[in-house]
Amino acid sequence: MTPERLQRINAMLDQRQPDLTVCMEGVHKTHNLAAVVRTADAIGVSDVHAVWKNEQMRVSGGSAAGSQNWIDVHSYTKTEDAIAQLKAQNMQVLVTNLSDTAVDFREIDYTKPTAIILGQEKFGASETALTLADQDIVIPMVGMVQSLNVSVACSVVLYEAQRQRQAAGLYNTPRISEERRQRFLFEGGHP
Amino acid sequence: MTPERLQRINAMLDQRQPDLTVCMEGVHKTHNLAAVVRTADAIGVSDVHAVWKNEQMRVSGGSAAGSQNWIDVHSYTKTEDAIAQLKAQNMQVLVTNLSDTAVDFREIDYTKPTAIILGQEKFGASETALTLADQDIVIPMVGMVQSLNVSVACSVVLYEAQRQRQAAGLYNTPRISEERRQRFLFEGGHP
Ligand SMILES: C[S@@+](CC[C@H](N)C(=O)[O-])C[C@H]1O[C@@H](n2cnc3c(N)ncnc32)[C@H](O)[C@@H]1O
Ligand SMILES: C[S@@+](CC[C@H](N)C(=O)[O-])C[C@H]1O[C@@H](n2cnc3c(N)ncnc32)[C@H](O)[C@@H]1O
Repeated sequence: MTPERLQRINAMLDQRQPDLTVCMEGVHKTHNLAAVVRTADAIGVSDVHAVWKNEQMRVSGGSAAGSQNWIDVHSYTKTEDAIAQLKAQNMQVLVTNLSDTAVDFREIDYTKPTAIILGQEKFGASETALTLADQDIVIPMVGMVQSLNVSVACSVVLYEAQRQRQAAGLYNTPRISEERRQRFLFEGGHP
Repeated sequence: MTPERLQRINAMLDQRQPDLTVCMEGVHKTHNLAAVVRTADAIGVSDVHAVWKNEQMRVSGGSAAGSQNWIDVHSYTKTEDAIAQLKAQNMQVLVTNLSDTAVDFREIDYTKPTAIILGQEKFGASETALTLADQDIVIPMVGMVQSLNVSVACSVVLYEAQRQRQAAGLYNTPRISEERRQRFLFEGGHP
């Protein structure tokens, strides 16, 4: 690894936000999976969780454009297991959902440890996710379409989290453990 | 048309922002085109502009999910013509661009009449667009990927515009002309 590349990777790791994550529940279109992982990487998310409704699915290549080496993807077959894992990490669990009772996504404090659940393209988030999550959130819409694309919804919420975390100084000092840094450097530096 | 549907359409038209628009320069993947139009509709954009590098292209169906009837799509074969048209409408023309000289997208005043140019998936915005636009803007990224998906970039900027316009009261009173309202009602109400 050249010194420039080592410096670039360390600078990226210095901005990682280990207590901000996304959980995709049954999202299955490749371009959506790729766009979610790509945006997560861009704002410094270090871990992405995915509940697969179908064994063959996995985060695949395409336009995720190399971000997978730098993000840990955690897979589950059941929503309950994913949410239990997130709660064990003391995260507030938010589920993006198109309901009248959901709160505006900008009212949330994303400087707290936070997990954002994204629902499946066609059916949205499951009843299980809605029951177990702490809060449902909605992105306001004033047009004729009934929902946003899932990767678009993800990015609108993540960039609000990025805005709040930047204002709170959460990007100013490194936040991942030394052990994780070494593992990322080892795995990513020697492909 | 039922009274409920008429009311729903009028409520949507009451929120339209005729002086906020997007111009896609050579964007060609169907799912990206669809996601851009869908997000534009969701925040109240009434017109979308597109420069087609290829005659066969057009905004196609899929997950734009019926928003096309409610958005006017203006097509061009040359970037110069699109930008001249936007400037004739007294819009500030912004181009999303990954350069060191671009300003952070949150520094812009989107309550002014504004057009946002989006570049092609692989090559980005053209030299012509960069030369003719008033300003280039960038969405900050701190990861390893080099760019965001184009529909993601579009939505992050549009929701910042929506936030500013909502705070400024631009969604509080109808802003489209009576003539346009009647045309939308006629075309959309009788498919
Ligand atoms: C295409 S939508 C699912 C639509 C589904 N018919 C429903 O009612 O939930 C796919 C996912 O995108 C996210 N999403 C889309 N639009 C959203 C919005 N306006 N607010 C919050 N989340 C949204 C949610 O995660 C949703 O589960
Ligand atoms: C995949 S990018 C194009 C990448 C191309 N290699 C380049 O350097 O421009 C496609 C479009 O998405 C938008 N985009 C993606 N990431 C962006 C960012 N961080 N800031 C501003 N615009 C972005 C721009 O409109 C860009 O032209």
